[in-house]
Amino acid sequence: MKKTWVDEIKFDSNGLVPAIIQDFKTGQVLMVAYMNREAVLKTLSTKKAHFYSRSRQKLWLKGESSGHVQKVKSISFDCDGDAILVKAQQIGGACHTGYRTCFYRVLDSKKKWKETGKKLFDPDKVYKK
Amino acid sequence: MKKTWVDEIKFDSNGLVPAIIQDFKTGQVLMVAYMNREAVLKTLSTKKAHFYSRSRQKLWLKGESSGHVQKVKSISFDCDGDAILVKAQQIGGACHTGYRTCFYRVLDSKKKWKETGKKLFDPDKVYKK
Repeated sequence: MKKTWVDEIKFDSNGLVPAIIQDFKTGQVLMVAYMNREAVLKTLSTKKAHFYSRSRQKLWLKGESSGHVQKVKSISFDCDGDAILVKAQQIGGACHTGYRTCFYRVLDSKKKWKETGKKLFDPDKVYKK
Repeated sequence: MKKTWVDEIKFDSNGLVPAIIQDFKTGQVLMVAYMNREAVLKTLSTKKAHFYSRSRQKLWLKGESSGHVQKVKSISFDCDGDAILVKAQQIGGACHTGYRTCFYRVLDSKKKWKETGKKLFDPDKVYKK
């Protein structure tokens, strides 16, 4: 079979590669999750970020419950081919806690993790049981 | 022993956590590498990014050969505690290929990885044998 762009990605022994999602406008790093080959292909074909959940062991569309999809603007990969960078338009917030970014805790000068930013939404309302 | 900030980080079964390095001014994502507990502590104490090399199986200071160190401005971690984001001032280029960022290849409309940007340095001159 002819090699394509996806064959150049080096998936690890579990078939996964870490993917960074970055806001295409502000440059804010929103989250890191893992993609398998299928998730990478789906991300390109649908232009919406898909991942592979290691805990649930299945493919998922980011935003499938919350509606907070990530509309893909570009896909890059790194020199070693073992990490992916997706620039995207984030609808709503990336983080299931309600923050825009999953990286909402910064180490302060007292060596404590400090929450920054404001919650955009109430997770209990968005992720209905 | 009293729990500290570093104990809140969830290292994987190999004792590692992926760390994203981002230019603190431009927001450009420069690289992804792995840190173990020692690398995280060294990164904070020296304010220069340290990683754990999976291939060489040892701690390394980014820039130890090239001089292209990453001066740490802030350290964040994500909602799950299993990924780290370091905002830093990159001296020289982050990538051993000579590019400023390791993510210098973007998928184009023909589904080919296309190099973007210009090389900042000649790796053969910087990484002397």
